[in-house]
Amino acid sequence: MHSSILHFRRQRWNIRASKMSINTLNPIRSIVDGMKLTPNPEKPMIALSIGDPTVFGNLPTDDKVLQAMKDAIDSHKYNGYAPSVGYQKSREVLANFYSCPEAPLEAEDVLLTSGCSQAIDLAITVLCNPGDNILIPCPGFSLYKTLAVSLGIQVKLYNLLPEKSWEIDLQHLESLIDDRTACLIVNNPSNPCGSVYSKEHLQDILSVASKRCLPILADEIYGDMVFPGCKYQSIASLSSDVPVLACGGLAKRWLVPGWRLGWILIHDRNQIFGKEIRQGLVKLSQRILGACTIVQGALESILNDTPQDFYQRTIRFLKSNSEICFSELSTIPGLTPVMPSGAMYLMVGIEMEHFPEFLDDVQFTEHLVTEQSVFCLPATAFEYPNYFRIVVTVPEEMMVVACGRIREFCQRHYRPRSQDSAELDQ
Amino acid sequence: MHSSILHFRRQRWNIRASKMSINTLNPIRSIVDGMKLTPNPEKPMIALSIGDPTVFGNLPTDDKVLQAMKDAIDSHKYNGYAPSVGYQKSREVLANFYSCPEAPLEAEDVLLTSGCSQAIDLAITVLCNPGDNILIPCPGFSLYKTLAVSLGIQVKLYNLLPEKSWEIDLQHLESLIDDRTACLIVNNPSNPCGSVYSKEHLQDILSVASKRCLPILADEIYGDMVFPGCKYQSIASLSSDVPVLACGGLAKRWLVPGWRLGWILIHDRNQIFGKEIRQGLVKLSQRILGACTIVQGALESILNDTPQDFYQRTIRFLKSNSEICFSELSTIPGLTPVMPSGAMYLMVGIEMEHFPEFLDDVQFTEHLVTEQSVFCLPATAFEYPNYFRIVVTVPEEMMVVACGRIREFCQRHYRPRSQDSAELDQ
Repeated sequence: MHSSILHFRRQRWNIRASKMSINTLNPIRSIVDGMKLTPNPEKPMIALSIGDPTVFGNLPTDDKVLQAMKDAIDSHKYNGYAPSVGYQKSREVLANFYSCPEAPLEAEDVLLTSGCSQAIDLAITVLCNPGDNILIPCPGFSLYKTLAVSLGIQVKLYNLLPEKSWEIDLQHLESLIDDRTACLIVNNPSNPCGSVYSKEHLQDILSVASKRCLPILADEIYGDMVFPGCKYQSIASLSSDVPVLACGGLAKRWLVPGWRLGWILIHDRNQIFGKEIRQGLVKLSQRILGACTIVQGALESILNDTPQDFYQRTIRFLKSNSEICFSELSTIPGLTPVMPSGAMYLMVGIEMEHFPEFLDDVQFTEHLVTEQSVFCLPATAFEYPNYFRIVVTVPEEMMVVACGRIREFCQRHYRPRSQDSAELDQ
Repeated sequence: MHSSILHFRRQRWNIRASKMSINTLNPIRSIVDGMKLTPNPEKPMIALSIGDPTVFGNLPTDDKVLQAMKDAIDSHKYNGYAPSVGYQKSREVLANFYSCPEAPLEAEDVLLTSGCSQAIDLAITVLCNPGDNILIPCPGFSLYKTLAVSLGIQVKLYNLLPEKSWEIDLQHLESLIDDRTACLIVNNPSNPCGSVYSKEHLQDILSVASKRCLPILADEIYGDMVFPGCKYQSIASLSSDVPVLACGGLAKRWLVPGWRLGWILIHDRNQIFGKEIRQGLVKLSQRILGACTIVQGALESILNDTPQDFYQRTIRFLKSNSEICFSELSTIPGLTPVMPSGAMYLMVGIEMEHFPEFLDDVQFTEHLVTEQSVFCLPATAFEYPNYFRIVVTVPEEMMVVACGRIREFCQRHYRPRSQDSAELDQ
């Protein structure tokens, strides 16, 4: 009898999804899936929403990159298991590629991962316990929150300032730090802002981290993707004491996001992470192992043989397309685009008071699809309402058409301020 | 003042690795790292310990498999992001490949993952909450425990019976089930046992799962790798009600473990998992995405164009090497090898009472390295002391030499039972 009570719950099927799976939230999916996205049948759809530079075919990776993969396959050397942290040779090559006098790296400072997403996941997981909190940018890439919340880690959003080219509101940032703050995520260059921080601003961020003894998780997946005239510096190269886990990958700069090769660079000149964090990362890397060995085997040639011109061509294109988009949208009443300095994105403010038909950025972008077949991601997906994000990787002619349609849309729905119209009525 | 107390802990550096990273334990590493493995300088080292079929170069993958990868690269179609659950086409191809009338599959029943390890990780994570327990085989592959414990999930070990070709002790299995038992892991064919379950035994396992309403996580990474004369059946093909998450991958059958392409096949004919588990898996897949897109793109050709002869050649080799090893070791006093029926492993019992110099399997295998330069993994790594595991993928001549050395080692250290020797003394 006792036993039958004990086992009652096992006498019928009752399988529920785990709390972790239920708590794995994808804000982009949940917002986009909730939108009525029915394009105007008379205009072909233009998606300015997809953060994948490969979708339009106008930004192919370099032939050297593809050749490196085929050579790795032909060598027959890269079919077996690699160490969970990656081949020693590939770690060495990566250390050399990113080493600089201010932030020297050796092979042991490098872990290869299954994309930059796994790099960020491992970094958050090793630094934080459930109940801890992390500081993330607002607006910011939604994955930080998705990963943290699924692990029972709280997020606190620090403000970026559009009027200061999306610099961090340092006072606000500092006000959020408490005893359970386990790390500060800095995303530079930024998705969705396209901002690139100056040396001075990075030093100011480091000062706060140093004073409050906060390690930094630097998401530098767009590192070096900055426009001519602007300089990118890794935050670790400016740090004398703050320990940094710098996350990166092949995805964006080499234009192969599907290949899932990412990395963590451990910068810890004062032995603050020490052995414990390094060992923790190694142990976590053994759970499911990391990147495909063919891509790992190709890495040396990808890093060393890709011609400089390839990188420059990509950047020139992104800059030119950003300029077209920015100069078009800046002349549209009711919109406030912010010119980026790098990455592949441009944020556009919507002066909602001039578009009273729409409740928010979600409705605004929804109707932009219905009428003009142009889809931009509402920045509510980045916890930043009343903006939308444009991906600047689309072909130039598409960008020009899209901007024209956005103008038409805005002109149709723009209303002068209610105060102005009240004046007119008098 | 209040604020300075509040922030005290943030005024000095104190970064500790998370509990999860500390709780990520790798028994194989911790046992092997603790062993004194100094080979005899007069004999070249032979490692029978490495579960990677590619290390000796005698078991290359098929040229068609390599060509499929190069074609995927040349197509320029597989560089961007795939959906988090994998390309629709690749899921479809996999569903067709594994579909059978008793266990039909469609594309929506398939998720592609970063290796079979991620498949197992996602399956455990979606089915279990911290504090739940899962049933795992003993001896068994150590990853189940590593993954579960790192997530705060308990493991309960059910016994396999070496005298019954490693069938499950079903009475013992059933005695372990309680209200918090969230899933039963069945590994067939088995690592480290090389066993392949009969249809009848699989049906008996399903009866227990059905009676106690337990879903099954089937680790079938060695599926179809069974010796001639023996038949492999997926457990899902025999289930009428028990829902099954079947995990597999390219690693072993196609001999490319480094490529990290795995999958989950969802078998749920009675809608017991329902939408909730499917959605949970999809959500978890979005955390870090899955397999490299080049391998995903190559999958159709890998599955459809690899010649049958390739699979048969591998199996013939594994069987022949197993027979050599088994017949050699069965004539060595003090050893009890168990003949496998599939996979790439063979377990050998050590009658420890005949080797009084050694405390356990760890010391036994340690001294085997010191004297004979042969390394076999002590089965303590699989929670099964006094056995060791031999990987049968080494070249035949190496296997023959290794068996000869094991014989020499055993002959030197074998002692008759103390009772026998006591009799002799009388």
